[in-house]
Amino acid sequence: MGHLIFVGLGLSRPEDMSMKALVALRGCDEVFAEFYTSRLIDACQAELEEFIGRKITVLNRKEVEEGTIILKAARQHKVAFMVAGDPMSATTHVDLRLRAAEEGITTELVHGVSIFTAAAAAFGLQPYKFGRAVTIPFPEPGYLPASPYDYILENYSRGLHTLVLLDIREEEDRYMTANEAVRWLLDAEQRLGKGLLNDETIICAGARIGSTGQRLLAGDPQTILGADMGPPLHCLVIPGRLHFMEAHALVSFASAPRDILEED
Amino acid sequence: MGHLIFVGLGLSRPEDMSMKALVALRGCDEVFAEFYTSRLIDACQAELEEFIGRKITVLNRKEVEEGTIILKAARQHKVAFMVAGDPMSATTHVDLRLRAAEEGITTELVHGVSIFTAAAAAFGLQPYKFGRAVTIPFPEPGYLPASPYDYILENYSRGLHTLVLLDIREEEDRYMTANEAVRWLLDAEQRLGKGLLNDETIICAGARIGSTGQRLLAGDPQTILGADMGPPLHCLVIPGRLHFMEAHALVSFASAPRDILEED
Repeated sequence: MGHLIFVGLGLSRPEDMSMKALVALRGCDEVFAEFYTSRLIDACQAELEEFIGRKITVLNRKEVEEGTIILKAARQHKVAFMVAGDPMSATTHVDLRLRAAEEGITTELVHGVSIFTAAAAAFGLQPYKFGRAVTIPFPEPGYLPASPYDYILENYSRGLHTLVLLDIREEEDRYMTANEAVRWLLDAEQRLGKGLLNDETIICAGARIGSTGQRLLAGDPQTILGADMGPPLHCLVIPGRLHFMEAHALVSFASAPRDILEED
Repeated sequence: MGHLIFVGLGLSRPEDMSMKALVALRGCDEVFAEFYTSRLIDACQAELEEFIGRKITVLNRKEVEEGTIILKAARQHKVAFMVAGDPMSATTHVDLRLRAAEEGITTELVHGVSIFTAAAAAFGLQPYKFGRAVTIPFPEPGYLPASPYDYILENYSRGLHTLVLLDIREEEDRYMTANEAVRWLLDAEQRLGKGLLNDETIICAGARIGSTGQRLLAGDPQTILGADMGPPLHCLVIPGRLHFMEAHALVSFASAPRDILEED
């Protein structure tokens, strides 16, 4: 009977995967991957294939959701399914694992570094003080969800930070930028007007977190709107109540204005 | 001028660190570590030293908080400071990084897998649906904080899951168990009586998450109280509103009672 290993690759380069992941991948008969829920910042498929010494079959959203290809392979032998970050962050991964288990295919997780914790660490913000994370979708005519704005406000009103992940349309090679995300939030503020954002609100923008080209910037909405954060992946953190140490970290590591040190 | 690299080792074994971490550690002149905020589940110092090919100086809480030893070394050459999980999750790490930066010592982070995301993935719970995390402290005469209970209730009332980390007293080799944590929560329920827990409340207990000896169990308070989860590290997740897929994952991977599938 087969075996299906879900492998988290981490954030940026092939070397960001754990030794455990590398050994697991090299021990597999077949290696699949998906890069539409997220992707490595600084590695192409060929580099990954060279690093692990295996051909990789990259599946699109439809193929992963159907699961037919992976499950067929996993019935027969030892198969790995690689994703950027940590596996199981997408419902599809959990669904796939459940379907494998129901067929009697043994499953295993090899964890990878996730943006959920790396973003907090990069900015020097306490992971304990993050409320629920949100994702900002690309604007669609007639589709303007309020929930990201409302959830950020809910966290903020409790003094909690919010990790804001940005929409990915891998098939169109579109990755939402920090600038677009701030624009989205300002539009939501105008539309909903609950007072989440004003001209002085500090927003943390992160680009390529965990990579050598990482860029961090904390400033007011106009500052982030005007900044060139470079290539994807980008994310935001909307800080809640900042502990003195957190404020210092934002000043030292994300060029935040020094006046945030006077607050509290 | 010196360089200080903060390296996250991940959760269990030396092989859980990234290749990037291994290369960074091997390239350092001196390697320090602290294991009082957390520790590797399945590795002793000697194994780590053999794996990275370097002697490790393990510092106690006082030495890390003072920072003198690390900063003195980092002024002169390339130094690594290793911690279990991901660095910067403790304020002391951020403080140390800030003090290094103020001295002109360049600093760098190499991320490791953190329990903050690995716990969600192991149980098949959506990382987006976690509220703020809490830590349950060992009970002290005259010290019974309500905040862990209140924060879990706050998350729960919003349908959010809560990661519950458990107190560590490394100097006494004491690591709170899932059983002790459930006992703490039941006592808090009696004391505060806000209706967070009843006899049917599902609690997820995780032991040695990310290790080969990982154990997951989801059940009512009495089930967890009576379970032998084995050696540390343990943690809990108090689930909020479960998505159908999440409930299935708890049944399949954490032996949750099937009747949780009927809810919703």
